[in-house]
Amino acid sequence: MTKALDLLREHLKEHNLHGILIPHNDCYFGEYLVEGDERIAFLTNFTGSAGFLIVTSSQAVLFVDGRYTLQATHQVDQNIVTLKTLGEESTWFKNYEKHDQAFAYDPWCFSESSLRPFKTQSSQFVLKSVVDEIWENRPKHPEKSLFLHPIEFSGKEAKEKIHEIKEVLQEKNIEATVLSPESWSWMLNVRGSDLFYTPISQGFCFVTQSKIILFLHTTQQQPDVIAYLNELGVEIVSISHIKKTLESYATLRFGYDSQTTPLSIKEIFEVTIPMVDPCALPRATKNTTEIAGAIFAHKKDARAWMRFRSRLEDKYKKGEPITEMDIDQMLLEERQKEAGFVSPSFATIAGSGPNGAIVHYRADEKSNRMILKDEILLIDSGAQYKDGTTDITRTIILGKPTPEMKRDFTRVLKGHIGIASAKFPKGTSGGQLDTLARIHLWKDHKDFAHGTGHGVGSFLSVHEGPQRISKFGHHPLLPGMILSNEPGYYLEGQYGIRIESLVYVKEDRENWYTFETLTLVPIDEKLIDWDLLNKEEKCWVESYQKNARAITP
Amino acid sequence: MTKALDLLREHLKEHNLHGILIPHNDCYFGEYLVEGDERIAFLTNFTGSAGFLIVTSSQAVLFVDGRYTLQATHQVDQNIVTLKTLGEESTWFKNYEKHDQAFAYDPWCFSESSLRPFKTQSSQFVLKSVVDEIWENRPKHPEKSLFLHPIEFSGKEAKEKIHEIKEVLQEKNIEATVLSPESWSWMLNVRGSDLFYTPISQGFCFVTQSKIILFLHTTQQQPDVIAYLNELGVEIVSISHIKKTLESYATLRFGYDSQTTPLSIKEIFEVTIPMVDPCALPRATKNTTEIAGAIFAHKKDARAWMRFRSRLEDKYKKGEPITEMDIDQMLLEERQKEAGFVSPSFATIAGSGPNGAIVHYRADEKSNRMILKDEILLIDSGAQYKDGTTDITRTIILGKPTPEMKRDFTRVLKGHIGIASAKFPKGTSGGQLDTLARIHLWKDHKDFAHGTGHGVGSFLSVHEGPQRISKFGHHPLLPGMILSNEPGYYLEGQYGIRIESLVYVKEDRENWYTFETLTLVPIDEKLIDWDLLNKEEKCWVESYQKNARAITP
Repeated sequence: MTKALDLLREHLKEHNLHGILIPHNDCYFGEYLVEGDERIAFLTNFTGSAGFLIVTSSQAVLFVDGRYTLQATHQVDQNIVTLKTLGEESTWFKNYEKHDQAFAYDPWCFSESSLRPFKTQSSQFVLKSVVDEIWENRPKHPEKSLFLHPIEFSGKEAKEKIHEIKEVLQEKNIEATVLSPESWSWMLNVRGSDLFYTPISQGFCFVTQSKIILFLHTTQQQPDVIAYLNELGVEIVSISHIKKTLESYATLRFGYDSQTTPLSIKEIFEVTIPMVDPCALPRATKNTTEIAGAIFAHKKDARAWMRFRSRLEDKYKKGEPITEMDIDQMLLEERQKEAGFVSPSFATIAGSGPNGAIVHYRADEKSNRMILKDEILLIDSGAQYKDGTTDITRTIILGKPTPEMKRDFTRVLKGHIGIASAKFPKGTSGGQLDTLARIHLWKDHKDFAHGTGHGVGSFLSVHEGPQRISKFGHHPLLPGMILSNEPGYYLEGQYGIRIESLVYVKEDRENWYTFETLTLVPIDEKLIDWDLLNKEEKCWVESYQKNARAITP
Repeated sequence: MTKALDLLREHLKEHNLHGILIPHNDCYFGEYLVEGDERIAFLTNFTGSAGFLIVTSSQAVLFVDGRYTLQATHQVDQNIVTLKTLGEESTWFKNYEKHDQAFAYDPWCFSESSLRPFKTQSSQFVLKSVVDEIWENRPKHPEKSLFLHPIEFSGKEAKEKIHEIKEVLQEKNIEATVLSPESWSWMLNVRGSDLFYTPISQGFCFVTQSKIILFLHTTQQQPDVIAYLNELGVEIVSISHIKKTLESYATLRFGYDSQTTPLSIKEIFEVTIPMVDPCALPRATKNTTEIAGAIFAHKKDARAWMRFRSRLEDKYKKGEPITEMDIDQMLLEERQKEAGFVSPSFATIAGSGPNGAIVHYRADEKSNRMILKDEILLIDSGAQYKDGTTDITRTIILGKPTPEMKRDFTRVLKGHIGIASAKFPKGTSGGQLDTLARIHLWKDHKDFAHGTGHGVGSFLSVHEGPQRISKFGHHPLLPGMILSNEPGYYLEGQYGIRIESLVYVKEDRENWYTFETLTLVPIDEKLIDWDLLNKEEKCWVESYQKNARAITP
């Protein structure tokens, strides 16, 4: 680590640079990175999924958020790296007295929005990807082929989607744009294997009315993929040629997303117009085939869960020891038995007792805890099936809960039911529903410090916009959108509770919408205090349990 | 009417002007106008409380909102005035082909925000208050004296408030500002009688660190007021000298509110900084004395209501005819008997049967309806007492309701209880609570087309910001804020239901807030379908009714 930072500083000095800004994200601004894009890990050893690093000739400051504070102190040598709170990096930079000297930043890893907070009147920037230049033995980008996501799963031909996206561009008087991996994967009905949890290949897709160019890390694709893309009129070009290729289109009116279009690309074009990713909304509003796929995927997931649950119960009855990591393994094994299983959709959170209260907990060799019978166990996991993406949290107990545990669990359950059974008029946003998940906890002066729900893709990212249930969710909910419904409660040092099912928005009657719950896995009734439920809530639980139990493993 | 418009056009022509923009508001941007500021009524006969008029050499277009469409068609001669929808005036103006010719507008009646939508690349504006110049026999501004609002009601000396406001200005590095009537009335602990429903005098208050000048429509004030203001160091100057006086302060750094500071004032200053009215938040968060006053005012209001209710019941039992206007009169008579009563706080809405479904209904000779025994009667009224402002809606029935009426009423009641009994963490906005008032109606695919609650002043305006319960309410709720809790349901052509009580925010425990209901008037139990209420809701109703009935008339 010291060596990498030393090398970096030498390199900065050679180039007459005073420092460098290094965000955690890569040029795709997605949820996950490939190993060769883990620049912060390369320089500091810190492997968290969010962070920001500023290195100057005399300092290295790593900004991490609350969930990673402990991890960072373990991974980072604090003699050479100072730890600070993520979100404060631009203020730190603005107060830093030497920013009149030149700072480097990689214009591939910054968008218009992400660079803005660092611009001060006296700051000088030099576009330079200094880190990559000193990174010896940098892991190569995966060179895996795309694969087709056929109509039986996508429900709509790529030709049609392309046509619609071009129409949107035309309406906005935009002649060209560049799509991110999740957007072009959706539009072209292809998927990939570059990442562990999201079935995409990285790369950019350039779209004009007459041309579609797919810039990929490898042009060595399977013959069926090449034939299919040819047929669609999509050219495949190596991503190493992206800049040069796009320069010949520099005079087109270019639409960019201020959050996610890398400055390197935006700055190629003479006329640039801010716009929202045109694929985001059509991708979020799943069609009938995708919803049918989601229903099927959730049935498979429920079967896998029920087999896992019996194995767990068996082990417990036999008195065999069980750890958090065993749970992750058992779930994976059971899901792998289901048709169309591709991968987990994120890293399983199996948090026993106090570990459950750590919202983004992931068990490792060090933290791995035995499952004790009277402790609450929170399990948040999900899978990528070709028909759809799942994400479920159940909170269970093998032994006997205390009255407090039951009260807290039931308050969370009431919030879960409040969302699951809501009807709402057209135009309602997730922000307007969020409180329904909290109001019962609030009566006990309790709350949870995360949103109630995130959007979920269709065999794509498990976190997807623009839909969300949170006070920040201003986009109207529309039929076909899939979201999580996951209120929780976390008692530090004791236990964590979360009840998460996926739901989709459907029309209830003209101009009125409701949610239909996709996840069909029983709720642990041992944790329910029935006296706290009203008549409608009891009905909801009974009907839900009946439907869930109808699924046979 | 024709004559006024003709005169206006002649005058425009003389000044080489093509047209003029006339908003409904006066220079104070408040809720109510004095008669001499009713420019739209003078020109078109339309007396609604909102509107926008554009007059050109060939057209007169009046923009009114939904609640006034009918009234406008009755009052306005549509041969010479075209009616359009309020909110579309700037679009109409932008599409109007002749806006490269000069248009007049009165810079006293426009703020930075209200003029912005009319600015097009080719629009030419001339600052000119043409209407007032042609208005013969324009009603004179009232010349009533201010009166003191003593410490027993205000709970805080003006000296202290002035000090705090000056501190806010200093923190923001602002050297001068101008306060609107509701703000300086609050700061100086004075009230007035210029308007029917809001106890204020019109005028502006200029504040610097060393000087406070009150510009009033009359300098002839009562001796006690003059002595009091002298003691505070407040100079009284005639409003006719405002421009000339402020010009000598033109070099001070001037803080203005983009929504409500007239351009005429803003443009006097060389350096202008946008800011929020510094009185708004301290005024909204009532102190202990003001809350105690509100509690007392609501007790008096409840007594008046109960006497009114018995009179109504008596008349009904005797078979005497009752009309909507009788109700208004009876309520006024009963309120006048209470100590400290000053005026109604707004025009009573007494809507019987289908009239109740018109949200901003006000009975007049033409619409005035008999109260029929099996019809729902909605009564929304309020009063200004020296100790506080009230605003209450009760929905009652003299005879027997249908099951549908009871179901709708109970759904509204459930929403009312949802708000009344909410607990919420510090930082929660009214926008986060709004859905609690709607979710039960939504289950029946019903809703109401207004916010759930507005802020209420302390012997000031019955509508006050920044607090509100509505999806647009982003300001955190703070202890001492008074708001209305008024969900409703309106079935066109049949009936209107609204249950409105005032509440105030109080601390429940550290960092947790709740509402305490101020209004103590029983809810009509004939309209409740008890089967639709759950255990907690029944408890709430029983406890509320008991408290309300404990008040003896």
